[in-house]
Amino acid sequence: MTKVYNFCAGPAMLPEAVMQQAQQELLDWNGQGCSVMEISHRSDAFVALATEAERDLRDLLGVPDNYKVLFTHGGGRGQFSAVAMNLATKQDAAAYLVSGSWSKSALQEAGRYVQAHAVASVSEHNGLFTLPSEQAWQYPDNAAYFHYCPNETVDGFEIPEPPSVALPLVADMSSNILSKPINVSDYGVIYAGAQKNIGPSGLSVVIVRDDLLDRARPDTPSILHYATLAKHDSMYNTPPTFAWYLAGLVFKWLKSQGGVDAMAARNQEKADTLYGAIDGNDFYVNRVDPHYRSRMNVPFQLARPELDDAFLAEAHDAGLIALQGHRSVGGMRASIYNAMPLEGVQTLVDFMHDFARRNG
Amino acid sequence: MTKVYNFCAGPAMLPEAVMQQAQQELLDWNGQGCSVMEISHRSDAFVALATEAERDLRDLLGVPDNYKVLFTHGGGRGQFSAVAMNLATKQDAAAYLVSGSWSKSALQEAGRYVQAHAVASVSEHNGLFTLPSEQAWQYPDNAAYFHYCPNETVDGFEIPEPPSVALPLVADMSSNILSKPINVSDYGVIYAGAQKNIGPSGLSVVIVRDDLLDRARPDTPSILHYATLAKHDSMYNTPPTFAWYLAGLVFKWLKSQGGVDAMAARNQEKADTLYGAIDGNDFYVNRVDPHYRSRMNVPFQLARPELDDAFLAEAHDAGLIALQGHRSVGGMRASIYNAMPLEGVQTLVDFMHDFARRNG
Repeated sequence: MTKVYNFCAGPAMLPEAVMQQAQQELLDWNGQGCSVMEISHRSDAFVALATEAERDLRDLLGVPDNYKVLFTHGGGRGQFSAVAMNLATKQDAAAYLVSGSWSKSALQEAGRYVQAHAVASVSEHNGLFTLPSEQAWQYPDNAAYFHYCPNETVDGFEIPEPPSVALPLVADMSSNILSKPINVSDYGVIYAGAQKNIGPSGLSVVIVRDDLLDRARPDTPSILHYATLAKHDSMYNTPPTFAWYLAGLVFKWLKSQGGVDAMAARNQEKADTLYGAIDGNDFYVNRVDPHYRSRMNVPFQLARPELDDAFLAEAHDAGLIALQGHRSVGGMRASIYNAMPLEGVQTLVDFMHDFARRNG
Repeated sequence: MTKVYNFCAGPAMLPEAVMQQAQQELLDWNGQGCSVMEISHRSDAFVALATEAERDLRDLLGVPDNYKVLFTHGGGRGQFSAVAMNLATKQDAAAYLVSGSWSKSALQEAGRYVQAHAVASVSEHNGLFTLPSEQAWQYPDNAAYFHYCPNETVDGFEIPEPPSVALPLVADMSSNILSKPINVSDYGVIYAGAQKNIGPSGLSVVIVRDDLLDRARPDTPSILHYATLAKHDSMYNTPPTFAWYLAGLVFKWLKSQGGVDAMAARNQEKADTLYGAIDGNDFYVNRVDPHYRSRMNVPFQLARPELDDAFLAEAHDAGLIALQGHRSVGGMRASIYNAMPLEGVQTLVDFMHDFARRNG
């Protein structure tokens, strides 16, 4: 196998050690004589796995006892609907901060269920994408919750601290969960599609405060109904068991690496290295207000966009794959989640220097 | 690894050849240098995989061009909601045939969205579970569709031919899809959670006739919205990519085995072998009307239920695993989906004869 560094935004690379373990035990997990994906989710062995994965996640994020942790179907977009259906009535409003394309999609989906209102939106200011200050945000009356996306995968826009709001705070952490310590008590609901920092696509993790479990619309589908999932330990229906298993391996790996504090330091070093290369060479540009630059997804453009195809082709040949920017914005994007080692970023930076030198 | 035969009802065993291929290419799929679960669902390589999987499924089942095939999140239970939300208004009724525990659950879930009505229910008659004749079924007025479950996993109850109804026919084929030829044109919607005859849990396959795509309630969540999924080739949101990949391998395997005709013959032989062992020995009993006996899930009881634990323990020691009946009904259940080889059933039957001889 050619050694590659995979910068895909998602489904993203998983830790190499996790993938090797998964391969080794794919046909015979835990002495069962079959794969972990071939056993009942209600078997003692799987329930033990599931319980341990939840415990490890609780340890990593310091989830208080008055929060439930759910493992469920439907990805991040499933939660766009679930949040609105679980937390609000049709008569309620909801406050959405639009910091990029995912929070905009969340706002649109919520509009099917509530009076969803943008309190503020990202915009270009002096050539950089930024947000208005919190003092300028416009709240609707009767908002049942406040939704935001702390890291926007497409836009490379990360909000470093949770906003100060008096409403239950809902965070779509799909692309930065477990990348740094958080204070779970700041949030009413945290959710994440797994396919960036947790595991393969097909799994969502939801962390929900107990007092928010009694608000669901009666027509909330069972697979999205927080209280039902909580009551049944996420096994009201058959969960995505192999994805849950892989998530558990990732949690163990994170613990072995020193937990989210260690990941935060490593992620900062990776981001500093990459933004340093962009800022240090006129050949590259990133147009996000430095305060909001993402540590997870680093979009950049070439000063000469006609070289985009050459950049991507030569990078691919050098084992640096999946660097194409999202189809809606073009250019390049390097996603550097927890699983990306520093060497991957250094290899990319070396390539960028070399490409600029040859084409500058 | 101890050789085991895995009779789990789901998540169920997958074909050995499929699991071996998945293991072999888990770290480097298709020369990508990474796992298939680590690449974008929008990459050329994954789109090619997805397209080919759909084509193979269409070939296997003979899906006409006026049907869409969707690969989505949410399992069978997600479809309990999706069917009602996509096919009916709140004012509509819907007709449900209750042939066991899954169709009963489907009826209950649909009750959140429509006037869901049981047209007939399974009941015990002369000691055997059976259904009233079609002539005795009671239809509600204004039914938008007719829902049934051709194979009930818990109850071991299979309806051999689709009922003759004038409404769009919706079939939950989670546990018998691809086990025999069907005429897709008989149906309006066919859906199946993957984890019995298709792949791992976390994926659903939906086959829906084009003319049913314009009926969805406006508050149908995007991840359950057939027209949205169809319009975006099941990639409006990130699909469960690894499960889709495994499903594709299973479809290839099915083709290599001779397709659903060959499967039907093999499944009949397996079922005949197992029911023959049950009927041939007073030590064992199956209480389903022979007309409705499932070829996929064979529940049976011991004449002396106090021996259940010994039967299960000794079977497990003999490499015959996951034979415990569903927690709601007890006893034993052998699930013998496509992936179960005839030798597995023969080994079970030999064990059953031996156990009966020693304890009879």
